[in-house]
Amino acid sequence: MTDSTTLCEIGFVGAGVMGKNLILNLADNGYRVAAFDLDNQKLEAVLAQDAAEQGDKGPRVVGCSSYTELLSRLSAPHLIVLSVPAGKAVDDVCHKLIDAGIQADDIVVDTGNSLWTDTVAREKSYEGKFIFFSTAVSGGEVGARFGPSLMPSGDPYAWTRIKPMWQAIAAKVDPATGKPIERFEPGNPVTEGEPCAAYIGPSGSGHYVKMVHNGIEYADMQLICEAYQVMRDVLGMSAAAIGEIFVQWNDGPLHSYLMDISAQVLATKDSETGLPLVDVILDKAGQKGTGLWTAVSSLQLGSPAPTIAEAVYARAISGLKAERVKAATVLAGPAQNLFSEEQQADMIQALHDALYCAKICVYAQGFHLMKTAAAEHGWQLNFAEIAKIWRAGCIIRAVFLQSITEAYERNDELENLLLDPFFSKQISVYQQNWRKAVANASLAGIPVAALSSALSYYDAYRTAVLPANLLQGQRDFFGAHTFERTDKTKGKTYHVDWSRPERPMVKVK
Amino acid sequence: MTDSTTLCEIGFVGAGVMGKNLILNLADNGYRVAAFDLDNQKLEAVLAQDAAEQGDKGPRVVGCSSYTELLSRLSAPHLIVLSVPAGKAVDDVCHKLIDAGIQADDIVVDTGNSLWTDTVAREKSYEGKFIFFSTAVSGGEVGARFGPSLMPSGDPYAWTRIKPMWQAIAAKVDPATGKPIERFEPGNPVTEGEPCAAYIGPSGSGHYVKMVHNGIEYADMQLICEAYQVMRDVLGMSAAAIGEIFVQWNDGPLHSYLMDISAQVLATKDSETGLPLVDVILDKAGQKGTGLWTAVSSLQLGSPAPTIAEAVYARAISGLKAERVKAATVLAGPAQNLFSEEQQADMIQALHDALYCAKICVYAQGFHLMKTAAAEHGWQLNFAEIAKIWRAGCIIRAVFLQSITEAYERNDELENLLLDPFFSKQISVYQQNWRKAVANASLAGIPVAALSSALSYYDAYRTAVLPANLLQGQRDFFGAHTFERTDKTKGKTYHVDWSRPERPMVKVK
Repeated sequence: MTDSTTLCEIGFVGAGVMGKNLILNLADNGYRVAAFDLDNQKLEAVLAQDAAEQGDKGPRVVGCSSYTELLSRLSAPHLIVLSVPAGKAVDDVCHKLIDAGIQADDIVVDTGNSLWTDTVAREKSYEGKFIFFSTAVSGGEVGARFGPSLMPSGDPYAWTRIKPMWQAIAAKVDPATGKPIERFEPGNPVTEGEPCAAYIGPSGSGHYVKMVHNGIEYADMQLICEAYQVMRDVLGMSAAAIGEIFVQWNDGPLHSYLMDISAQVLATKDSETGLPLVDVILDKAGQKGTGLWTAVSSLQLGSPAPTIAEAVYARAISGLKAERVKAATVLAGPAQNLFSEEQQADMIQALHDALYCAKICVYAQGFHLMKTAAAEHGWQLNFAEIAKIWRAGCIIRAVFLQSITEAYERNDELENLLLDPFFSKQISVYQQNWRKAVANASLAGIPVAALSSALSYYDAYRTAVLPANLLQGQRDFFGAHTFERTDKTKGKTYHVDWSRPERPMVKVK
Repeated sequence: MTDSTTLCEIGFVGAGVMGKNLILNLADNGYRVAAFDLDNQKLEAVLAQDAAEQGDKGPRVVGCSSYTELLSRLSAPHLIVLSVPAGKAVDDVCHKLIDAGIQADDIVVDTGNSLWTDTVAREKSYEGKFIFFSTAVSGGEVGARFGPSLMPSGDPYAWTRIKPMWQAIAAKVDPATGKPIERFEPGNPVTEGEPCAAYIGPSGSGHYVKMVHNGIEYADMQLICEAYQVMRDVLGMSAAAIGEIFVQWNDGPLHSYLMDISAQVLATKDSETGLPLVDVILDKAGQKGTGLWTAVSSLQLGSPAPTIAEAVYARAISGLKAERVKAATVLAGPAQNLFSEEQQADMIQALHDALYCAKICVYAQGFHLMKTAAAEHGWQLNFAEIAKIWRAGCIIRAVFLQSITEAYERNDELENLLLDPFFSKQISVYQQNWRKAVANASLAGIPVAALSSALSYYDAYRTAVLPANLLQGQRDFFGAHTFERTDKTKGKTYHVDWSRPERPMVKVK
């Protein structure tokens, strides 16, 4: 029975791993949560965990057995969070909520990894029935439980309703250092510091920004893997030794969650065989689609993000395991070199610097893509704010994001992160080693698609005259596609009769 | 007035550059063509050119002033070719033809650069109204006039109707050499040799194959441009000198239409300034979308085509001209090296070999993609046949395609072109120079996105154990995404509690 004194401030549909942890996080922060899941076991699990953590202080989560009961347990206007798989399930739940009597001023917040265009379509299609809002969540299970990075977008009124809750549960940054304040204790949430939850913009923009976050994450992970492979296969280092290098790297400009966990993964022993665990893990990478979406969007918008695309392709190639095992016996590599200890140390340092420079380029690509998308869709994105909320809670959190925050605080119109004085200086200092690392890997037969793609991106971006003049000549030659001239008004295009070039050029428009 | 003795075998809607040339090509081959264009000037132009070429032999093309007249001028069942811009115009014309009384057994053949999924949708949507067939055309204006490469797909009955015409007008290959038989003379078509027109498969497959052809074309062009830039900006060579190198290269395994026209472009002087024309062409590349579609499809199907994607991105970066000019003053490059004459010759040879190896990888990616798409869509593609019809007429025509034809004739189940004995041998011979070229360009600050992406593709494809084991460890660490073990049954997945790895691993499925 509903009792007005027990009405909850927020309801959840979906108590899977992410939903459960967001619920407990909200509860830790003093909110009463009503929860429903079609799978009663999942619902029971969250209630049991709440009870276990609370002891005799009484439950903070109200379990509901139907959509109708869920609505009845919430104060009006209702605020309901969906934590269900992206895709069809989101619409299924929305229709059930309509059947259960949800009202036009109620708010539904999708927190799944939805494709951003689906979010835009949903906001439109549910207009008048309820307010469809979205919040992209990064941080995995642990983030959801103790502080995720939250990228909400859509109806501004809905944001004012959910803002205090999202800011309460979000990851927090120490404003003095720009680093995460991490405390993973049930019942003792981090309440100080700057919350990693900021309104991104109109419908879909939050999920777009999260999509780019994931694209960057793909590239970041791939870069670390390439450095690992060079040390493993060229320098012959053990997993443990490479893990130690990563521990050192994590103490400098590469300090990041991904570097940290890579070191931990490499240090972990398999409980069954006693071998380094990484050595018994099969080298076939999975993917869920967000990296691919980022690459596709960058291709469609013409905003170059080659290193993100290379990271997606690297996962695809890893998936061709049987073909690779066969190819390894057929396709020749270069002669193997042996390295002196001094050369080894040099190569490790070169890899470090390469990783740093390439990482800067990946972020440059990601932010350039968001800028292009914002212009295309009329979003007013605040890039300093986006960098800020990525400083903690999310998978790509890194000290590095403090520098990006500062770059966009210096100049919020920055065309490309590479042009910021801090970053251009960094690359100018470290580039020689980056070039060396790519050259060495190329000669040694190690695939460094991401490291080298980032280098080509950098070199292309800083080249005033690319060879696309020849390309335009080719295109005009075979397809009369026309070209512009360097010595004529911008935008005017010309065509040459290449079999009779002595004739005057034809001005096409 | 329609006279039964003057009924035409084939009708055309659209007399733009491509339509006009296909019409004249058909006429040269003895077919009577009825033509209609909404733009009367274009129609007049094709009639005038026909008259001029025919002299007093009388016209071979019948101009029509409406869709109704077009139908009345054709023998039944009607066969009508569309040469209109891809997209909405195709459907507009189809609806006009329905209004004009087209019948269920009539055939409409779309020859535009349509997105292949549109073609599939159209075949379905016009079912019962007429037979929607498609033929992708490569070869630009000149190809259309004197012999294109034709990639028809769809209804097999429609193919039997149009086959003799397409084989007549298609480019021809000398079966003894595998090289094109080229004769660019109005009224004197090439009638001997193997025609570059073969039925590809079910609806949409021909346009898909053409799309991949264009993706390969993008990468091929980009590779040539990268070699050009290294010679221009590192070796300081003039356009004419580089053109001469390309003439030499065109006399070996790199012999191809694109190499030939690149040499011609570089040798061409601007009629206005007397400078090398290429030096006054603006370095901003345009694109029409087919390269982008290929990259997107490869990402979506998980069939790696990174070098094609890099070529698309290279055009996108070239488009950021204003940003690049600015960046060139801000972003540092490496110290410039000077090269001895002997070193120069070495570098040019290294570029040649790099271009050859990278080109093999681009074709490997393209054919792998077609194989993956065929499996996905249930198409029975004949790869030897596809390579055959690309030997002449199309933009990527090259002696090289004879080797690909032979590879698939040896083994039509080939998983990857790289595994063919001829190609694996070629790369093993030339790879050291390829690696050197990539290393040198990386050190010298020249972007070689395509050359280096192809190298990483090669090195990844021949690596039995990639670093994706670490990546799977990362993914399981932060997202419980699970992994397979090298020592357990394929397909079984495991999860570790990374904070307590001493605990037994959890088998997930």
